Amino acid sequence: MSIDPEDWDILRAEAIAALDAGLSHLRNAEEGRVWTPFPENLKTALRFGVPPQGLGLSDVRNALTDMLPYGVGNTHPRFFGWVHGSGDPSGLLAEIVAASMNANCGGRDHAALYVERQVVEWMRGIMGFPKSASGLLVSGTSLATLIALKTAREKAFTFLSRERGVTERLVAYVAEGGHACVSQAMDILGFGTDSLRQVPVDENMQMNTKTLLSMIDLDNEAGLRPFAVIGTAGAVNTGAIDDLKAIADVARRRGIWFHVDGAFGATAMIAPEVAGRLNGIKEADSVAFDFHKWWHVNYDAGCVLIRDKEDHMRAWSDRPDYLAAGEALAGGAPWPTDMGPELSRGFRALKVWAHLLIHGTDSIAEAISRNIEQARMLAQNVAEIPELELAFEPPLNIVCFRLNIDGYDLDGLNAAVVAEVQRNGSAAPSTTKIEGKLMIRVNITNHRTRDEDLDLLLDAILGAAEKLLDDHRLE
Amino acid sequence: MSIDPEDWDILRAEAIAALDAGLSHLRNAEEGRVWTPFPENLKTALRFGVPPQGLGLSDVRNALTDMLPYGVGNTHPRFFGWVHGSGDPSGLLAEIVAASMNANCGGRDHAALYVERQVVEWMRGIMGFPKSASGLLVSGTSLATLIALKTAREKAFTFLSRERGVTERLVAYVAEGGHACVSQAMDILGFGTDSLRQVPVDENMQMNTKTLLSMIDLDNEAGLRPFAVIGTAGAVNTGAIDDLKAIADVARRRGIWFHVDGAFGATAMIAPEVAGRLNGIKEADSVAFDFHKWWHVNYDAGCVLIRDKEDHMRAWSDRPDYLAAGEALAGGAPWPTDMGPELSRGFRALKVWAHLLIHGTDSIAEAISRNIEQARMLAQNVAEIPELELAFEPPLNIVCFRLNIDGYDLDGLNAAVVAEVQRNGSAAPSTTKIEGKLMIRVNITNHRTRDEDLDLLLDAILGAAEKLLDDHRLE
Repeated sequence: MSIDPEDWDILRAEAIAALDAGLSHLRNAEEGRVWTPFPENLKTALRFGVPPQGLGLSDVRNALTDMLPYGVGNTHPRFFGWVHGSGDPSGLLAEIVAASMNANCGGRDHAALYVERQVVEWMRGIMGFPKSASGLLVSGTSLATLIALKTAREKAFTFLSRERGVTERLVAYVAEGGHACVSQAMDILGFGTDSLRQVPVDENMQMNTKTLLSMIDLDNEAGLRPFAVIGTAGAVNTGAIDDLKAIADVARRRGIWFHVDGAFGATAMIAPEVAGRLNGIKEADSVAFDFHKWWHVNYDAGCVLIRDKEDHMRAWSDRPDYLAAGEALAGGAPWPTDMGPELSRGFRALKVWAHLLIHGTDSIAEAISRNIEQARMLAQNVAEIPELELAFEPPLNIVCFRLNIDGYDLDGLNAAVVAEVQRNGSAAPSTTKIEGKLMIRVNITNHRTRDEDLDLLLDAILGAAEKLLDDHRLE
Repeated sequence: MSIDPEDWDILRAEAIAALDAGLSHLRNAEEGRVWTPFPENLKTALRFGVPPQGLGLSDVRNALTDMLPYGVGNTHPRFFGWVHGSGDPSGLLAEIVAASMNANCGGRDHAALYVERQVVEWMRGIMGFPKSASGLLVSGTSLATLIALKTAREKAFTFLSRERGVTERLVAYVAEGGHACVSQAMDILGFGTDSLRQVPVDENMQMNTKTLLSMIDLDNEAGLRPFAVIGTAGAVNTGAIDDLKAIADVARRRGIWFHVDGAFGATAMIAPEVAGRLNGIKEADSVAFDFHKWWHVNYDAGCVLIRDKEDHMRAWSDRPDYLAAGEALAGGAPWPTDMGPELSRGFRALKVWAHLLIHGTDSIAEAISRNIEQARMLAQNVAEIPELELAFEPPLNIVCFRLNIDGYDLDGLNAAVVAEVQRNGSAAPSTTKIEGKLMIRVNITNHRTRDEDLDLLLDAILGAAEKLLDDHRLE
């Protein structure tokens, strides 16, 4: 009568078959191609109507496990594109338990929320936030940033904006090269992307805080209203970490909110050689970061911390009658829905909690430190190859460079080379632009990367360049 | 060197142990208590510092599986609180494969996005949206509503607001009793909750569309600018479905956006006896709904559909250099990040896709129809018991009623009775207020509910009332 399985043993057998296929995929993560395009026949196989009658469990399990080879490639040691974590096979334990619990973590009083609060408490400690802080797990830094900047918005408007709306455009500041999720938050919140000022960076690729101060003062003089400055801990193009203490100082002096975009960089706080540069996070009003990047928790899992839980709750909590706090199941306030936009939320805290218990912070920190060392090594090797031009000395884990050979369309050549090494399966860097030039971008947030993988990457790039050079000769 | 397991066989054994514990929990979902408070000793066990060194895999697995009994209770046949789906054991297959792939579904060209597009295509068909439509999977209707109303906002401002911000407060309309996620979206988007007008409902608990029309006209005359009307398909307090065709007609005549909040109700489109009342969705500009409620996909999984993908993309897409569309892995545009706020996103489409393949729409529709019939039955039984007062004839799957006995503090009594039946583990209704009176709210979105569970619910309520009556006597 229910939609539960008729035969639980069959479900168990198929689940074990899925598990074995998944484990085998992960166990061989270091072998073979990095990225493999999803084959046309499997694309075609997807295109049928939604079935009125269910298919057999083993047919569906087969269709599921057939997809395993066609992921993004980020479980492979030579995946260096964008900023992807490389995942954790032991994350399967938590996902199996979470799927069996089927908890809605928007609210109510149950185990999942205690686990989430504990994860937030751990992160509060690691980021050096005070006991008054609160936090929430979200899909990633984009939502975390929205939550933080809305909290800043309401505080600036003394919370009246929740009812009355945005009556005045507030302006915010971020270093040039700041992540698009910051301008997106400004857009969503009704200020518009033009209200986000780009502060020039200095020779270390850090926000120039003297310029920041004078920009704030000029905006104030012009009758505009500065409300937040966003420090970047790990810029997406360069890995640069702003001078967070200097920004905190400016924010304090001018009475504006200090948010840190630490999507991947902030989690390097556990690595001793980076912690010093991240210390300014302790002075922030809010910080956003991801567990699924440099900590390798399976997708998706991010977090926002807010220094003062009163600010957090006043900006987000709004309980209608059907969600009233009460006793028993309706107890345990505050609920996650009091701190963010989601009322339905899966139990992603469980995989973060289990990940930290299984690995401990030391082994994760070790993998982070190794990646930083690998970035240094790669930059050194690039600098020694005459056909390659290094964009900058890597401040953290991101290396940008390009083929620079006279007489060729370099943007076209470098883009084609990146596509070729992705296509031939040998590696997966991505591209970006640095000062208007298209660059090969190598982001190393990968616990499986061995030093030799970086040699293989350069071999693949030089090999592809040799093959494609003629196509990009300037007339 | 990596954080991969040293011994894969041990991981496999622990994963199977987790699976067996999870399956055993679900197989016995119909037995025992509904909700069990998370025990103090397990709460205490959570409270230790984040470990520098990892713990043993079997210790962590034990800690994980120890939590299984302490969920929300929504896998139990007598869970009737809020609007929770009751989940799907076969969802484990997809979750195991998704965790093994560790795909980031914000973008790029890989299997996961083809699966998501297929799910959206299925839903486009089911909701009767045109080929020009687009859609996105999200955690739930709260985010889906934000995405839809931002799209409406940008269209009203001819998309200039993305750069320039909100320069004028727009007003929107929803029936009284509309879900809080609508006013929250108005708050986030910078209009403020005051800009959401509550349209009175008629005797069928549906939005009075004549009043809607005159409210729009009055607002226009007052120099305000109406931009959207939100129809409700399944009101959270009553289950009422607005006359969506009539609202579509008003929206068309006044040139404003028509969004449908169909969190749970819209998915009843597959049940023939409800489909007629939901037909107006076909005329909407956008619709938001959840897979994890009445379709029982495991948490979390919701969806937004937008009638015109150009509107959708122009309101959300913003690709910086490091996310530029290109070839190979960077191919396959548009990406999910072009259609919503998230750049990091797990592979939730897989569980929705597998769920529909495993069950087919007929068996899910059958469970929906059964729940509607059960709500009718429960209302009838309530009406026959002198101590109980039925709030309204249930239009769908939600029944509200209360103990109504002269000489007692009824709000206090009914609240205490709900807490008591939750606490003694016999059932889990929730509470709400209807016309200022605290009501026992029974929402039936549960494929495990048997008719006799509703008798047991009433027995439990009457039993608790007998026990608690004296505490609530008016002096």
